[in-house]
Amino acid sequence: MDKTTLTISSKNYSSWSMRGWLLVKLAGIEFEEIMIPPDDPATRAEILLLAPSILVPCLTHEGIRVWDTLAIAEYLHEIRPAAGLLPTDRAQRAHCRAICGEMHSGFTALRSALPMNLKAKYDNFRIWARAQADIDRITTIWHECLEAYGGPYLFGERVCMADAMFAPVVTRFLTYGVALDESCAAYCRRMMALESVREWIAAALLEPEQIIELEAEF
Amino acid sequence: MDKTTLTISSKNYSSWSMRGWLLVKLAGIEFEEIMIPPDDPATRAEILLLAPSILVPCLTHEGIRVWDTLAIAEYLHEIRPAAGLLPTDRAQRAHCRAICGEMHSGFTALRSALPMNLKAKYDNFRIWARAQADIDRITTIWHECLEAYGGPYLFGERVCMADAMFAPVVTRFLTYGVALDESCAAYCRRMMALESVREWIAAALLEPEQIIELEAEF
Repeated sequence: MDKTTLTISSKNYSSWSMRGWLLVKLAGIEFEEIMIPPDDPATRAEILLLAPSILVPCLTHEGIRVWDTLAIAEYLHEIRPAAGLLPTDRAQRAHCRAICGEMHSGFTALRSALPMNLKAKYDNFRIWARAQADIDRITTIWHECLEAYGGPYLFGERVCMADAMFAPVVTRFLTYGVALDESCAAYCRRMMALESVREWIAAALLEPEQIIELEAEF
Repeated sequence: MDKTTLTISSKNYSSWSMRGWLLVKLAGIEFEEIMIPPDDPATRAEILLLAPSILVPCLTHEGIRVWDTLAIAEYLHEIRPAAGLLPTDRAQRAHCRAICGEMHSGFTALRSALPMNLKAKYDNFRIWARAQADIDRITTIWHECLEAYGGPYLFGERVCMADAMFAPVVTRFLTYGVALDESCAAYCRRMMALESVREWIAAALLEPEQIIELEAEF
C-alpha cells in the first residue's frame, strides 16, 4: 500500500498545518510528516497570507492527494467515520460544519493582526477593533457550542473537527494575552492539555527558523 | 413539516448568496427565498468584506439552520445524495472538496479587486497583479478538472458543487473582461447558459439597489 503522508510547513507559524496535522492525529491514522522548509517561496507566501489560496497542508493517502483543511477533514471522516471527526447527529453535524466554515473563510483581521506564533508571548498587546470583533464572534461560537452540547469540547465529550479548526485560535489567545471569560478560558486550557496539541507545540518550540514579518517588536 | 427557506442578500452583489442559491437549486429542493435588504448593516458588512465571518446565505430545513456555503453544500449532499452535488468517486470527491475549499478560503485579491456585480460591464479594466495571480490559479484549477474529467462541467457531465462555487467567478471574468483561453472561455459560456444561473442573473438585473462602494468609476 502507498505510504500515507502529510505535507506541512512551519509548526510555529502555520495555523493551517497545525489544523491538518491535528485532524489526521484525531482520525488515528499513521502518517509520515513531510516538512516544507520555511524559505520555500510558495509556502512562505501562504503563511504571510500572500498566496492566491492555501495548498498546504496536503494529505496523500492510497495515492489520493487532498489539500485544503476542510477537504482533508471530510476525507478523513469518510475513511474513519468511527473517529468522530464529525458529530453523529445530523443537526449537530450541520452546526459543526457551519462553524468550521466560518473559521475557514473568515476572521481575516484576526489572522493578519494576531498571527499564530507559538514561541511568542506578548503582554499588553493592543488589539485592533476589527480583530476584537473577530474575537467576539469566536467566543460567541464557543459559548453556543459549550452551552448546547455541555462540553468539555465544542461538540461534547469527543474532540472533533471543530476543535481542531479552532485550536490555532486558542494558541493565539494565549500568545497575545486576549482577555476571556472563565468559560472560554477553561476551554482553552482543555485544548492546550490535549496530548496532540502538546506534541505539536513541543515540536514548534524546537524550530530554529524565524519569519521576521510575523514577529512583533516592543 | 417546517418550511424550507434560504436567506440571501443582494442578487447583484452577493457571491455567497448566489452560490448557496445555486446549490439548493441543484439539489432540487423547493424553498422559499428570504431576502435581507441591502441596507441591513450586518449583511452589508459581509458583502463589503468587513464582517468577521459570513452568516448569509443560511438554509433552514426541517428546523435545522445551516449557514456557511460549504456546510450548506455538505448538508444538501447528505439529504439529496442522488443530486450529484459531489462526485461519486472517492478520489474525485476529494479533488472536488479541495478546490471548493480553495475557493472558500482563498482568492482574497480577486474578491476585493473584482467584486461581483452582475449589472456592470467594464471594458479595459486594469487588473492588479495579485488579482491576476488569483485568476491564474483559478484557470489552472479549471484546466486540471476539464482535462481530467472531460467536461463539459468541472467534474464531468453533471453540474456539481464545484461549479456552483466557481459560478460567481465566471460572472466576474465577464464583468471585468478578463482575458481567458478558449477552454476557460467555453466553460464560462456553458455556466452562463445554465437555467439556474440565467434565472439568478435575470433577478439580479431587476434589483434597484446600488452599493456605491462596489461600483467602479471611469
